[in-house]
Parts: sequence; structure tokens; C-alpha cells
Amino acid sequence: MTTEANALLVLDLIGTFAFALNGALTALRTARLDIVGIVTLGMITALGGGIVRDVLLDSLPPATFSDWRYLATAAGGGLIAFVAGRRLERLNTPITVLDAAGLSLFAVTGAGKALQLGMGPAQAVIVGAITGVGGGTLRDVLIRQIPTVLHSDLYAIPALIGAGGIVVATALGADHAPAAVGGAVLCFAIRMVGVRYHLNAPSPPGAPEPGADDA
Amino acid sequence: MTTEANALLVLDLIGTFAFALNGALTALRTARLDIVGIVTLGMITALGGGIVRDVLLDSLPPATFSDWRYLATAAGGGLIAFVAGRRLERLNTPITVLDAAGLSLFAVTGAGKALQLGMGPAQAVIVGAITGVGGGTLRDVLIRQIPTVLHSDLYAIPALIGAGGIVVATALGADHAPAAVGGAVLCFAIRMVGVRYHLNAPSPPGAPEPGADDA
Amino acid sequence: MTTEANALLVLDLIGTFAFALNGALTALRTARLDIVGIVTLGMITALGGGIVRDVLLDSLPPATFSDWRYLATAAGGGLIAFVAGRRLERLNTPITVLDAAGLSLFAVTGAGKALQLGMGPAQAVIVGAITGVGGGTLRDVLIRQIPTVLHSDLYAIPALIGAGGIVVATALGADHAPAAVGGAVLCFAIRMVGVRYHLNAPSPPGAPEPGADDA
Repeated sequence: MTTEANALLVLDLIGTFAFALNGALTALRTARLDIVGIVTLGMITALGGGIVRDVLLDSLPPATFSDWRYLATAAGGGLIAFVAGRRLERLNTPITVLDAAGLSLFAVTGAGKALQLGMGPAQAVIVGAITGVGGGTLRDVLIRQIPTVLHSDLYAIPALIGAGGIVVATALGADHAPAAVGGAVLCFAIRMVGVRYHLNAPSPPGAPEPGADDA
Repeated sequence: MTTEANALLVLDLIGTFAFALNGALTALRTARLDIVGIVTLGMITALGGGIVRDVLLDSLPPATFSDWRYLATAAGGGLIAFVAGRRLERLNTPITVLDAAGLSLFAVTGAGKALQLGMGPAQAVIVGAITGVGGGTLRDVLIRQIPTVLHSDLYAIPALIGAGGIVVATALGADHAPAAVGGAVLCFAIRMVGVRYHLNAPSPPGAPEPGADDA
Repeated sequence: MTTEANALLVLDLIGTFAFALNGALTALRTARLDIVGIVTLGMITALGGGIVRDVLLDSLPPATFSDWRYLATAAGGGLIAFVAGRRLERLNTPITVLDAAGLSLFAVTGAGKALQLGMGPAQAVIVGAITGVGGGTLRDVLIRQIPTVLHSDLYAIPALIGAGGIVVATALGADHAPAAVGGAVLCFAIRMVGVRYHLNAPSPPGAPEPGADDA
């Protein structure tokens, strides 16, 4: 395996770990679950986006499922959240940062994989965004929440822009590695600015702010 | 492309547009969402049934996802609902009619595709109904509603009958085009009669009317 | 078809019937649904786990969907629950036993299929558990419940252990049939002990008992 592929794998596993931790902590906060529930929801948050991506790209069995390193990393993140949940709650900022990193990496690798498999640019951008937000959406459905990505925060938009970044850069002839890094940095920066300044995507004309209270 | 294939594509895109518009309007009415949420739910309503169909038929990547015309039509319907939502609410009747047209077209094209790929008649009927009702069901799950198709209205039954129509006509040796038109007209007529007279599918013995109040 | 394959098919259809009956009865108790809703939810409970399994194993179209015997058995179970629902409620114990049998059979056949298709042991155990619990999870999402498997009862754990049993036995060189029987008996026994003594999986440290009241 080349150094570049190795670097990509390590980044992908970091994203997987961050999503599993964050997903399991969200589950812990929202619903009364047992160890099976917490770890399962952490794993679904971490692996779900990649599974939906691979269904849409006809790349089955899904990579995040058939490679044990993803399974082990996701299960590890979920277990740590289960054991250390109460103490991890205080680490809110590093977890948000890790989650933004996961979002950026998944959006960019998802879009890159779609391009490699011959999808058009619009499909690649959508697949990238789905890879980034799909796992959290599945988790929210299972714990009976309206998926956050649908009603508050800049979450899907940075993913769309990051995925768009790698697609445009590739169309302009950039190499894969710098295009991926550029898209990921773009996504990460927009997401962190959104978190810092509580930015929301536009609401329907005449509607109250979404997420202003319980939706 | 032949004239017939062209006509089918145009009909399919009309159904896609109607579903996206209707799906996004339903989302707008039910939950507080931002632009990402509204457009996403419109697209899921329009494309979700076809994606589930293509998973069940092993016809991946899904046609409604890999063909940009479906994506663009669905995104357009969702955006129009987002921008003009309040004003469109008054157009309830035309939207219901368009939605019934979408249901009929999707049920029939779904069943037809299943037959072409060698599925048996029972599978073709079920795939047709899933193509028609799948997108709205996914939307309802995401906005935390019990899917309407499960508890009120004649919605799944016209889809099953329309899909049954094309399957029976094909078994009797009819050509594809008239069989499809016949099935679609059957589905549309039953759906509109159901809407007009508020018909419901039978409830369990001894149970109160479903949908009579909040389920 | 050999006698062994015949025996396996009969067992699988018994599990399918038990799941359809149990799933439709759960739907009947929890939400106001019409005949379409009840039968659909029975079929999803019975067939959903196998469909998710076959997506993850790239074995599409799904076996439980393309074989009409599974469809007919599942539809039959759902219809019986619809018609005889009130009277069946009294048969709680036999239905729980049948459901445990279904769980055991599905966990073991799911894991066995994963092994046959060349998946690793961790993947086979997870696929087995998903085959067992997937259908009920889809049903719970559709009727807007937090899936029971996530928060109460020993339900996923016997499935994981039963699937683990066949994987370990196969790795040790056992033949398929005795390995499958052993795994299924293990799963069934643990599940029934859990039901009898109201055992739960561990909760997060410091949390109240899950499922102690409404989650």
C-alpha cells in the first residue's frame, strides 16, 4: 500500500472514531439505552453514511462493513462513549472539532469515490454530502429525533461545499490528493465558522427560525 | 431514443416533479425545517421509491440517482415548494391530482421494470407499490410521522391494483405500452375516488377508525 | 433439493411466519393502522432483516424478496394477525416462544450465509445479529417507537451469541448443520432465560434502568 493510501486510511479511521464517539454520546444524552443500544448507535453513526454511499454507487458489500478495521474503530468509539460518557460530556469542544473533521473527511472521500466510479459531478457532490451526514441521520431516526441536519445548523451545507470543492478541482485537472485536502479544509472551515457564530441555513419565507425551540 | 421511451421519460419526470413538490410541502407543514431540510425531503419523496425499487431488483446504481434529469427535476420541485410554499398551499386540489398521477406512474413503471428484469408476478406487484409509496414513507419517517400509507386513505391499495393491472395485462399477452397506460389509469381512478369520498382501507375488527384522530 | 436444505427451508419459513405474526401484533397494539399497515408491518418484520443482510452481503435481489414462499408466508402471518388480533393477544407465551425461535434461526442462517459468501468472522456475527433484529427494528421505526432492541431486554445479545456460536464452531471445523443447530439452541436458550427472569443488558454507568418507564 502506498504512503498516500495509508494516510487516507488513517484519516478515514480518525473520522470513523470521531463519528462513533459523537454518535454514541448523542444517543446517551437523548434516550435511555443499554450497552447494545449505545454501541450500535455509535457504529451506525460512524458506518451508516459509507453504507448508503456504497449502495448508491453499487459498490457492495460496503467498504466500511467488510473491512474489520472500520468495524473495530467504530465499536471502540461506541464502547468508550458508553463507559466514560458522563466525563466525556465536558469535552464538548474537542468532540465538536473531531466531528467536523469526520464530516469533512467523509464528504470528500465519498465524492472522490463517486468520481472514481464514473459518476457525474452532481451525483458526486450528493454522494459526498450523504456520506458525511447519512450516519447521523440514521441515528436520529432510530432515537426518534427529526434529523438535526434537516432543521438546524450549517451541517449539510459545508459537506456539500467540501464535496463540490473536490469535484470542481478534479474537473480543473488537479491531482486527487490536493483536491481532497482542499475540499476537506473548505468544509471544516465553514463548519467551524457556523458552530462559532451559530449560523443557520435559510428558513422558509415567513416561517419562524428553525430550531428556535422544540421542532 | 424511440418516441415511446421519450413519452415514458416525460411522464416519469412529471411524476418526479409532482412528488418532490408534494413531499416538500408536506415537510413544510409538519416540521420546522430549513432550506436543506425542505429540498432534501422533496428529493427523498421523489427519488426514494425508485431507489428502494432498484435495491430490491439489483439494478444499482439506482436509475433515479444516476440520471441527472431526475435529480434536477426533484431538486427543482423541492426548491419551488421552499420559495412559494405559503402560496402553493391554496393549490391543494391540483397538487393532490398531480400526486395521484405520480403514484400511478411510479406504481406502473416500477412493476414494469420488475417484469422486465425477470421477477415473478407477486414480486412485480409489490415492487410497483413500493416504488409508488416508498418515497413518501421515507419522508414521513424522517419528519417523525407514522407513514400515512400505513393508517389512512386509499393510497397503497390503488398502487397495488395499478401494478396488478400491468402484471395481469402482460401475462395475458398485452403490449407494454397499453398495459402500462391501463394500469396507470386504474390506479389514478381508484385513488381519486378514494380522495373524493374519503374512503379508507378496512381497520382491524373491533378497532376504532384509523386516522379518526391523532394516531 | 437435499433433505438438509429442505429442513432448513422449513425452519426458515417457520421463523418468517413467527416474525410476521409477532410483528403485526406489535403494530396492532401500538398504532392505529388499517389492513395495509398491519400486513405491511408484519411483512417488514419478517423480511426486513433478510433484506438488510443481503444488501450488506451483496446478494441482491434479496432472497426473502425474490422467493415467493417467503412473501406468501409473511403475508399470511400478517393477515392472520389482522383478522384474529384480539384473540391472539391471549396467546402471549407461545408467540414469544415462536419469536425466540425466529430470532435464533435468523441469527444463525444469517451468519452462515455470510461465512459462505466469504465474510470474516466479525462480519458474520454482525450480519447474523442484523438478520435477527433488523426486521423488528424497521417496524419500530415505522410505528415511531425507539427500537426495543436498543433499550431493553436481552434481544440482540442472544442473537450475537448464537451467531458467534456458528462462527466459532465452523472455525473449529464443525459441519454446517450441527454448527447451525448448536448456535440456534444457544441463542434460543439465552433469550428464553432473559424473558423468564426479565434480564436486561447493562446500562450506562450512573443511568437509571433503561426501559424502567417510558423511554
